Amino acid sequence: MRKRIYFNAFHMNCVVHQSPGLWVRPEDRMTQYTDLNTWVELARLLERGRFDALFLADVIGPYDVYRGNAEAALRQAAQMPVNDPMLLIPAMAQATEHLGFAFTSSTLQYHPFIFARLISTLDHLTKGRIAWNIVTSYLDSAARSLGQSELLPHDERYDVAEEYVEVCYKLWEGSWRDDAVVKDRARGIYADPARVRAIHHEGRYFRSDGYHLAEPSPQRTPVLFQAGASPRGREFAARHAECVFVSGLNPAKVGELIRQTRLQAGRLGRDPADLLFFLYAKVITADSEAAVQRKYRDYLESVRDEGALALLSGWAGIDFSKYADDELLQFVETNAVRTLTQSFKRPASAHRWTLGELVKLVGLSGGGPLLMGTPEQLADTFENWIAAGVDGFNLAYMVTPGSFADFVEGVAPVLQRRGLMQTEYQDGTLREKLMGAGRARLRPPHPAVQHRWT
Amino acid sequence: MRKRIYFNAFHMNCVVHQSPGLWVRPEDRMTQYTDLNTWVELARLLERGRFDALFLADVIGPYDVYRGNAEAALRQAAQMPVNDPMLLIPAMAQATEHLGFAFTSSTLQYHPFIFARLISTLDHLTKGRIAWNIVTSYLDSAARSLGQSELLPHDERYDVAEEYVEVCYKLWEGSWRDDAVVKDRARGIYADPARVRAIHHEGRYFRSDGYHLAEPSPQRTPVLFQAGASPRGREFAARHAECVFVSGLNPAKVGELIRQTRLQAGRLGRDPADLLFFLYAKVITADSEAAVQRKYRDYLESVRDEGALALLSGWAGIDFSKYADDELLQFVETNAVRTLTQSFKRPASAHRWTLGELVKLVGLSGGGPLLMGTPEQLADTFENWIAAGVDGFNLAYMVTPGSFADFVEGVAPVLQRRGLMQTEYQDGTLREKLMGAGRARLRPPHPAVQHRWT
Repeated sequence: MRKRIYFNAFHMNCVVHQSPGLWVRPEDRMTQYTDLNTWVELARLLERGRFDALFLADVIGPYDVYRGNAEAALRQAAQMPVNDPMLLIPAMAQATEHLGFAFTSSTLQYHPFIFARLISTLDHLTKGRIAWNIVTSYLDSAARSLGQSELLPHDERYDVAEEYVEVCYKLWEGSWRDDAVVKDRARGIYADPARVRAIHHEGRYFRSDGYHLAEPSPQRTPVLFQAGASPRGREFAARHAECVFVSGLNPAKVGELIRQTRLQAGRLGRDPADLLFFLYAKVITADSEAAVQRKYRDYLESVRDEGALALLSGWAGIDFSKYADDELLQFVETNAVRTLTQSFKRPASAHRWTLGELVKLVGLSGGGPLLMGTPEQLADTFENWIAAGVDGFNLAYMVTPGSFADFVEGVAPVLQRRGLMQTEYQDGTLREKLMGAGRARLRPPHPAVQHRWT
Repeated sequence: MRKRIYFNAFHMNCVVHQSPGLWVRPEDRMTQYTDLNTWVELARLLERGRFDALFLADVIGPYDVYRGNAEAALRQAAQMPVNDPMLLIPAMAQATEHLGFAFTSSTLQYHPFIFARLISTLDHLTKGRIAWNIVTSYLDSAARSLGQSELLPHDERYDVAEEYVEVCYKLWEGSWRDDAVVKDRARGIYADPARVRAIHHEGRYFRSDGYHLAEPSPQRTPVLFQAGASPRGREFAARHAECVFVSGLNPAKVGELIRQTRLQAGRLGRDPADLLFFLYAKVITADSEAAVQRKYRDYLESVRDEGALALLSGWAGIDFSKYADDELLQFVETNAVRTLTQSFKRPASAHRWTLGELVKLVGLSGGGPLLMGTPEQLADTFENWIAAGVDGFNLAYMVTPGSFADFVEGVAPVLQRRGLMQTEYQDGTLREKLMGAGRARLRPPHPAVQHRWT
């Protein structure tokens, strides 16, 4: 096989993840997000299609930047209501054998001591198929929900995250030796206490003085995802991430970002090839170009501007209700919006987007590339992105399970025929499936390893 | 049917819950506690046997009072390692239709805003089969793990718990109106924002200013378990608990405690019959008395004193390594040990227990009544306890699944023939299964109800 392309399904435990309005369509099942069957069947479909993992997003506060309140988000079910992502995993793990499960957890959400056990429990129950998407939260509403007046400044949130993962590494890698659990039935000894120790962490943001409650799990530290786009975020990714979630419309620019982050990782002593870059994307596919266009128009018609505006305002931190529909967005001089508008400019295009146009497209695409075409055309598109430096894709959906079923039935077989997508899973843990046999654990000089006790 | 007896299976996500040493026996499966199949099969067995619920204990620190360290607990796997209980539930829920799931979560463990969503998510995923066992933690090691130097004083821990449940009630009952989710496909409206509101809580221990992230779940507030034995604990139970976990060896004394708690609940305006009392117990049963005795001797032989001492010292808060094996325990003048020793005196017996005797018995029984006999004899015993005022039992195990299989195959049919145990489940949520049809939600004057928004 040539270098294979990695695929995750990008999802969320809610009605509307990135497709405001499309939940009303009869073929969308996400109004049944509270039913485990919805998720178990999705997991089985993804495993049948040889997806690497299901990647679950999360937020812990509503999108309330648009018009300064949560009304639009609530009306449109735009990532609100949103149930806990982690609790979907055990039932899906029980119904599958290989599919990985990545979930988002903010460093605001749990004390790291509690979080470390949650992860270890999941790593045990899934037999090592767990990944953690490390986020620092971007909505002030999350901080207020937790009794804080607002989020810490952006870069300090990363300082918190650095310390948070350090506490986790100590617990995951340094509290139990690999040989601690002896299960000696004859002598009635389960663990050798000489090989288990408490950690002692007293930092600026966290304290913990205790034994990791869980015995060593298959991966110890879960596969680490991160999505930092800012300089500080990229620095964090270069140091800690194994899988980096990137976004952008322009392959050359995304490729350059990836090269920069790999270089940074290399400067930290890491093998740049140990970082896999997943591009956010959505796919519309069908047997013919005409059918693709029909689907596109159908979906576009279902998009609800109000939901798109709620999401867009939350992401950008800007209340777009203050702008007219025909306003040209280049004139909004903030970083966040510049990023969004740039990502929406097609390569080599001088087109300037109005808010109205942007909203429609964000509503449909979620802000990343919308890849449309027949399976053969899409396989070419994926190859182009891979040539630019991307390793894989986090595929968001228009409708569930339809968007994933379309991919599994149409696109995956073409990619597999071209030798670009796995036809069978690598045995072992998620890290081995992603990085290769024998790679169940992190390897030096990843910062987790320095906390390992051998 | 006569007043039926309720039965929960009492368990924990670990190797040794209350039976130190018995994990080495070939028929015990708990070394496979990290395998979801172990739990899914247990849940199916319990549902086949018409158990009301699986009740999962938890601790968030090791038993390190004995000899001042965690060595004995680790060697004996005495509730350490211990994985998170909540994450077992989704897979078991998917494999069952009616079995309830109660799990223990300390008010130390999560910010109530985060915990409230975890519960609501589980209540959705199980279609309303969730109960929460409210605990305030008794091990200083839990506090240290979370960066505190020690636990708050006993009664203040209940003040924290009072405020914790208040925040939860506000989120569960008061953030979304019953009619908030409209799912109006024609107008593209999922929820009516006029029927969803943020809570504003600023108390002594917690702050939260936000919308409950989850839409209304079948029960809203989960079924509430509590196990307070102290005066302050009983007061908390009388106010908040729907199911009270009690322990003791003497039916008259346990019955008196139950009557007192019901009276307290009555003084608070609650219907005393709205509280169900579950007695901790273990069962050894077989076809003949001789076979029961053989099992008893077998199990007793497997008990490991060191594990029992680790547990006993943790529960009592006393390092029993400082006492001689033949010391008479009435001379240890602390409340906690008095409770233990009293509970071990057989009714109308003047026998004083030595530490050595106590340890063996605690190792086998976990500190509560050890009910032994043929199925017919046990049915009589259960009837006697019911006559004393108990509503049901939390049955701990010697071995898993053996102890539960023995009950399901031997005892349950006898109780069912006598009309003392359900043969089919009531439809609906766990609260309806326990309290009767139409009782999905808490009713006035339960303190949760005052936070309801109608």
